[in-house]
Amino acid sequence: MTPEEFRRAGHELIDFIADHLDTSAGADGAPNERSVSRRPVQPTVAPGDVRAALPEHPPTERETFDAVMADVERVIVPGITNWQHPGWFAYFPANVSYPSILGELLSAGLGVQGMSWVTSPACTEVETLMLDWMQELLGLPESFRSTSDTGGGVIQGSASEATLVAILSARHRATNGAVNAGGDTTGLVAYATSQSHSSIEKGLRIAGIGTDRMRTVPHDEQFAMRPDALREMIAADLAAGLVPFFVNANHGSTSSMAFDPSAEIGTICREHGIWFHVDGAMAGIAALVPEYRWVNSGIELADSYCTNPHKWMGVNFDCTTYWTGDRASLLGALSILPDYLRSAAAESGAVIDYRDWQIPLGRRFRALKLWFTIRMDGVDAFRERIRRDVQLTQSLATAARADHRFEVVAPHPLNLLCLAARAGNETTDALIERANASGTALFTRTVLDGRSVLRISIGSHTTRSEHVDAAWELLQRSV
Amino acid sequence: MTPEEFRRAGHELIDFIADHLDTSAGADGAPNERSVSRRPVQPTVAPGDVRAALPEHPPTERETFDAVMADVERVIVPGITNWQHPGWFAYFPANVSYPSILGELLSAGLGVQGMSWVTSPACTEVETLMLDWMQELLGLPESFRSTSDTGGGVIQGSASEATLVAILSARHRATNGAVNAGGDTTGLVAYATSQSHSSIEKGLRIAGIGTDRMRTVPHDEQFAMRPDALREMIAADLAAGLVPFFVNANHGSTSSMAFDPSAEIGTICREHGIWFHVDGAMAGIAALVPEYRWVNSGIELADSYCTNPHKWMGVNFDCTTYWTGDRASLLGALSILPDYLRSAAAESGAVIDYRDWQIPLGRRFRALKLWFTIRMDGVDAFRERIRRDVQLTQSLATAARADHRFEVVAPHPLNLLCLAARAGNETTDALIERANASGTALFTRTVLDGRSVLRISIGSHTTRSEHVDAAWELLQRSV
Repeated sequence: MTPEEFRRAGHELIDFIADHLDTSAGADGAPNERSVSRRPVQPTVAPGDVRAALPEHPPTERETFDAVMADVERVIVPGITNWQHPGWFAYFPANVSYPSILGELLSAGLGVQGMSWVTSPACTEVETLMLDWMQELLGLPESFRSTSDTGGGVIQGSASEATLVAILSARHRATNGAVNAGGDTTGLVAYATSQSHSSIEKGLRIAGIGTDRMRTVPHDEQFAMRPDALREMIAADLAAGLVPFFVNANHGSTSSMAFDPSAEIGTICREHGIWFHVDGAMAGIAALVPEYRWVNSGIELADSYCTNPHKWMGVNFDCTTYWTGDRASLLGALSILPDYLRSAAAESGAVIDYRDWQIPLGRRFRALKLWFTIRMDGVDAFRERIRRDVQLTQSLATAARADHRFEVVAPHPLNLLCLAARAGNETTDALIERANASGTALFTRTVLDGRSVLRISIGSHTTRSEHVDAAWELLQRSV
Repeated sequence: MTPEEFRRAGHELIDFIADHLDTSAGADGAPNERSVSRRPVQPTVAPGDVRAALPEHPPTERETFDAVMADVERVIVPGITNWQHPGWFAYFPANVSYPSILGELLSAGLGVQGMSWVTSPACTEVETLMLDWMQELLGLPESFRSTSDTGGGVIQGSASEATLVAILSARHRATNGAVNAGGDTTGLVAYATSQSHSSIEKGLRIAGIGTDRMRTVPHDEQFAMRPDALREMIAADLAAGLVPFFVNANHGSTSSMAFDPSAEIGTICREHGIWFHVDGAMAGIAALVPEYRWVNSGIELADSYCTNPHKWMGVNFDCTTYWTGDRASLLGALSILPDYLRSAAAESGAVIDYRDWQIPLGRRFRALKLWFTIRMDGVDAFRERIRRDVQLTQSLATAARADHRFEVVAPHPLNLLCLAARAGNETTDALIERANASGTALFTRTVLDGRSVLRISIGSHTTRSEHVDAAWELLQRSV
């Protein structure tokens, strides 16, 4: 491909994306023909359909951009689940803001590696600055700032990786680093509720802890951890000669947006020197709004914390912001310095080498998309959208409470509403299946204490009140 | 940012990238003013300079694209190390092809999640197809194809993650899955040479194996593993009641492009049921060229293998292709299924859920950039570039051998030449420092058996013979 071919193709692709994401009504009252809103939310393809529509073997001759884009329109677009659709109420909001697309594009175009400061200084320094900006915007503890004595932040690829990094840091601290050489995790015990994200269990398994030493702390009727139960479990494990080393608290759980009481949990962890990780993957972004800053309650006691700008803040995946107040344990767990990566800058201690803050070695210039989004969308726009989404959720909850066929089964302080059909699990499951088959909206199912639950997550950039109204009518028709 | 603002900004950014990457001479005989080739390869910034040039606090008002781009030109571009520069001889080639930039852009624009088949079927199925295309293009074993009984492939974010996934699969198989619950890795022992990538040690540490149980297998004078030594070490460990579980072989080591003898290593592993991983991160891509397909020699005995299209193939980072012949062990190690991720498609067994093939949960539509690059650049272009890079390296080796001040210190079958100054380590180190300070070329230093070594890695898309000639003159002047 020549530079001129790239220029032409790039302009066309930008226009394609602009059309795809634009759900506004044109002169004829309808969105443009390529708009995501004219698609079903969930594609109608069966397993194997996409592959069968493409050549089984690679081409021997080069092809044109036009030929590839024809296949994008023929096969790819009809084969994706539309996370950017106004009828998106599934999983979590995973918006792509226009500025973040530009930031990702620039990152791809510059093609630099940020594994060490010296491999691209701006990649490291802009990232550090963005984490400090986010600390400020979210009102996080000063001990998380890169300018603090012991803390700092980093962009991880996902909250799962952030969780694993937290577990490894905790494992390092609990063993005084002995685990690096000996690999011995005997007796280490971790604590979380059943509402915690699957990445906690996955991370513990990866780290060689094993699920036998993962305690499921009971939760209350709001799906929040019971600190009294945590305290008892820790005492029992200590009495048995075990080593409590890691507690996870959810600030907005995946299934139902439950908040664990971190002020109490953190106090217990401090008493026993246990690493305290707070998972605010989805809800933590709400702290951009002054009146929702309560989502951070108790976080000043945490050793580590993460939240995802790639969820509610509109930065395209992947962009998890992770902070720790104990970077020495993090570096102890993850730094390795072969000769081919040595540099004078790193050895002077004057710079950060982010490869030592993460699982992989290589890393993209992901800070650009955060920088672009904060500057070009602006903090006011984030606040406006978050307030709107919360407001829409509260209105929907009011409507649901007025319909005797539905029950609101969990607190809904932010943008997630959990409903069940009063008629029972079979009705709820059938309702979800029917509603999703409509193609106009998509919901996910979860289970809360054995009960089938419909999750309604509101937060797609393109979702307006009329889409929520239509979704509610769909649910009422489908129950 | 409005759709129209995005359109205008996107076109400008595409033009900016086209200019940045275009190193061809214009009408006046020089590259365009924004060309990467007019920049020093390594920026002249000191630690803290980039951050100091940007506001310490986030903006309270939204800013324009023009304001951001002014900062990109003022701060970012002068602050990056230019991996796309024609004078790039450092680390490894990390090219960004034009089609791969477009693929990354489309992935960002569509904004879908590929964690499960159902969260975006095309994201999964195109990826599976691309891994099968690559299996075919690289001449890899049929047992790695997704259509085989027991194997399959996946895109990982980096070779480090691929290595960790291999270690976890091996750990699972060696313990019959008991590690998931018990976390007990007692007695497990891994083997690799000192030339192996740092990700082997990092992965073993993460997996709770510990470096005490990582054996450094002696290498021969060509930095290749000695199979006789491996056999002896395994026998000694077995006699001591330990459990050999993982062997890593380098197909093109990081420091010197050494190739371990996998046919012999693999045979030993088979005898003992040890997981055999082959790391072809950099060199494996050479198998695109029929006459270099020897880089895969012995790979048919491997349980897992990875190579990086984001190195020598021009697909922008991140894109590591990973295959295993034993997907049951991989899934046993990494699959977890919470209620909110269940789907009928997955439970029927008809689809792949790639979240269970990797460390994170979330994943981007990275297959697009591989698909775009294979189709729009074309296989012939890859072959032409790889042949050119190898030819340039061999010519440079001939020139170096004719200069008595230099010594070629390792075999150079592909695109990496390792030189040392005959005058000793101090001279070599000073040479590297002086040459890099020129700004016209960048090299990295490594250590081979205690000797300081200058690595010359040839493979930037923009590097032509005149750049290699100029680099050689620079080295001759700097020694």
